[in-house]
Amino acid sequence: MTNQLTAAKEGIITQAMKVVARAESINVEDLRRSIADGKAVILANNRHKKFTPKGVGKGLSVKVNANIGTSPEMINVATELEKVQNAREAGADAIMDLSTGGNLNEIRKLIIDNANLPIGTVPIYQAVVETVKKRKTITKLDPDEFFDIIEKQGQDGVDFITVHCGVTQRSLERLKKQGRITDIVSRGGAFLTTWMIANKKENPLFEQYERLLKIAKKYDMTLSLGDGLRPGSIADATDRAQIEELITLGELAQEAINNGVQVMIEGPGHVPLNLIEANILLQKKLCNEAPFYVLGPIVTDIAPGYDHITSAIGGALAGYYGADFLCYVTPSEHLGLPSPQDVRDGVMVCKIAAHAADIARGNPKALKLDKTMSKFRKALDWNGQIKCAIDPSKITNFRQERKLKDDVCSMCGEYCAIKVVKDYFKK
Amino acid sequence: MTNQLTAAKEGIITQAMKVVARAESINVEDLRRSIADGKAVILANNRHKKFTPKGVGKGLSVKVNANIGTSPEMINVATELEKVQNAREAGADAIMDLSTGGNLNEIRKLIIDNANLPIGTVPIYQAVVETVKKRKTITKLDPDEFFDIIEKQGQDGVDFITVHCGVTQRSLERLKKQGRITDIVSRGGAFLTTWMIANKKENPLFEQYERLLKIAKKYDMTLSLGDGLRPGSIADATDRAQIEELITLGELAQEAINNGVQVMIEGPGHVPLNLIEANILLQKKLCNEAPFYVLGPIVTDIAPGYDHITSAIGGALAGYYGADFLCYVTPSEHLGLPSPQDVRDGVMVCKIAAHAADIARGNPKALKLDKTMSKFRKALDWNGQIKCAIDPSKITNFRQERKLKDDVCSMCGEYCAIKVVKDYFKK
Repeated sequence: MTNQLTAAKEGIITQAMKVVARAESINVEDLRRSIADGKAVILANNRHKKFTPKGVGKGLSVKVNANIGTSPEMINVATELEKVQNAREAGADAIMDLSTGGNLNEIRKLIIDNANLPIGTVPIYQAVVETVKKRKTITKLDPDEFFDIIEKQGQDGVDFITVHCGVTQRSLERLKKQGRITDIVSRGGAFLTTWMIANKKENPLFEQYERLLKIAKKYDMTLSLGDGLRPGSIADATDRAQIEELITLGELAQEAINNGVQVMIEGPGHVPLNLIEANILLQKKLCNEAPFYVLGPIVTDIAPGYDHITSAIGGALAGYYGADFLCYVTPSEHLGLPSPQDVRDGVMVCKIAAHAADIARGNPKALKLDKTMSKFRKALDWNGQIKCAIDPSKITNFRQERKLKDDVCSMCGEYCAIKVVKDYFKK
Repeated sequence: MTNQLTAAKEGIITQAMKVVARAESINVEDLRRSIADGKAVILANNRHKKFTPKGVGKGLSVKVNANIGTSPEMINVATELEKVQNAREAGADAIMDLSTGGNLNEIRKLIIDNANLPIGTVPIYQAVVETVKKRKTITKLDPDEFFDIIEKQGQDGVDFITVHCGVTQRSLERLKKQGRITDIVSRGGAFLTTWMIANKKENPLFEQYERLLKIAKKYDMTLSLGDGLRPGSIADATDRAQIEELITLGELAQEAINNGVQVMIEGPGHVPLNLIEANILLQKKLCNEAPFYVLGPIVTDIAPGYDHITSAIGGALAGYYGADFLCYVTPSEHLGLPSPQDVRDGVMVCKIAAHAADIARGNPKALKLDKTMSKFRKALDWNGQIKCAIDPSKITNFRQERKLKDDVCSMCGEYCAIKVVKDYFKK
């Protein structure tokens, strides 16, 4: 079975590399080299059939992930498949199934079969849900069962998994010494912490990291090294616990690459604008430029209902400074599970942030699209603008509702600046 | 009649300075000094009764303006007053009346009387509308009539006016030499250009700048030196024409301050993320740190329907780097005139951007609010969160619709990270 990293190291161009390079209009040999160096990854489980592999990292456009999935309170498979559809249509590059309610194996399989995109998971969710079902408490989680679940998800074709390997006894000690407003807000991080404290044991994902690498390599599952200790508030941003964990993730990333396993690093979370650049530079330095996958980041805590926007602000800036993969945040974040419409809105706004970052990074395809849009705008050509728009329905709906025809715009009417000076600038 | 700048230069603390300093929890003597240096302004026409003056500039929180007003196609005074109400309730710090349809004097008066906020205008709009009514064409605009309109608006209590004094024969020459995708997109800039070309004359706002200063000083109207040549697309951002105009605005700003007239500088517009910092630094250097009032900036051209978000991204970053005053952009930008709901959404999102900038700039009030919010979030205290939220209705509506009670959140349910690790972090 294909392993992208091993192939890249041996100088082999795989089919997936060709697909990715063509989609991005980049040189495939440059891509191969970035993968060999661990600076880019291709999300493509070698058992996953019929989907479009995506590249994440150096030289590639900024990618967008949509989290979906059930909770114990909201189990509706049809709704989740509607979210898949909305995420795809809005332009998501990947989908993570974070389900914790219902038949998890079945839901995951349906999502994999319907998405036509790389699929990610957080296997500890399933491990915890099954443990609680069987033995009532998280603290009775059996590490062997946990690794079996990871293996099963690999067999099913999951392309990338979040594994919170950096939540260690040492990082928890530093976390406690640090003192935080919001302690731990990562679910995976919280589960592992609870287990580690109760059992007075090291994190099995850290202690048995080689076992994890073996499974990941077999299915060519990319490890997304999770930030279980990411801060959950502006006040806690970029503290010692976060950076302690990041150093560990950098060490683990190197080990993964040495062992033929592709790896990404996950990042926060809640970060004020003035700390975003430092967060990106630090990750790139400490992790040998491994692809950086950030959640948001949101730039203020006070805007529930608007966290797709607070995260678009942070995500755009993070992407500009070098983050490679943005995990969307929906308007429902901090309130509850997102609806299918929230998923659509979340992906769309995150795509805008990713595109703004691509422009700032000088991505030629992105720059060309904006230039074409502007030419149509100058020409008052609405059909052309609809073709270039990130969400064409916004333009068509607006104009249909107001019955606007031809080049008419209700904003300035006859006092349109473009019309007024048109003759003067004719070449 | 009071003139804030003259008072500040003479070491006098005015009532308006006290109001502003108290609202911002800053030292009033520091504020006075910033005003005397032209680094901050207080928007407060000395004929404007019953309203809350606002400070803009050095040492102050980032402010938000909402543009409203009729167009020839959409004249509904009740709708405009609803926009005033929505802008106020969403937290706008100022409102600009950009009406070009209906009885402009009457509409402006109603807005001034209802807003309880500083009001801005672009007097050339009224001058052009009246000229076209009387003499059919913009090119027959009479400069004396134009100055009479500015005087009338001053008498009526307008607190700040956009005047495109930097659209000069020289800057137009440079604009033409530059070559642009979108030429001129500022309406005021386009009107003046048309007049200047047709009449082969210099811009009256530039040529008779002393006359303008005299009127402004009389009513203590702050001049907002408009960027008539601001780029209207990412491809045109930060070109020679824009910077030529900015240099002129810097010179005119100095002259205004020397003559006892408060002044702000207006800035773009369409700016990619990688050029925002340079735009702010340049304005601050070229204009002796006069307050910078930016429109957006939006960071991509391809997102009509989402330009409140593209501008929140740019505005947050601009504010962080030192912009003082953000002009909101609504979801209707590039499509048509905004609805009252668009006004609410536009102000709210722009407030989020301004707040994110305040946090990044280390504003103690802003930081404290986020910290308090996070403590309530940690405690799963929804009433506390509602109190801190920028838009409390988003939380209450979400929870009412889903009938959520007490500390329940539908996102993680029983697997809530905060609940899971609560005991471990108890001090």
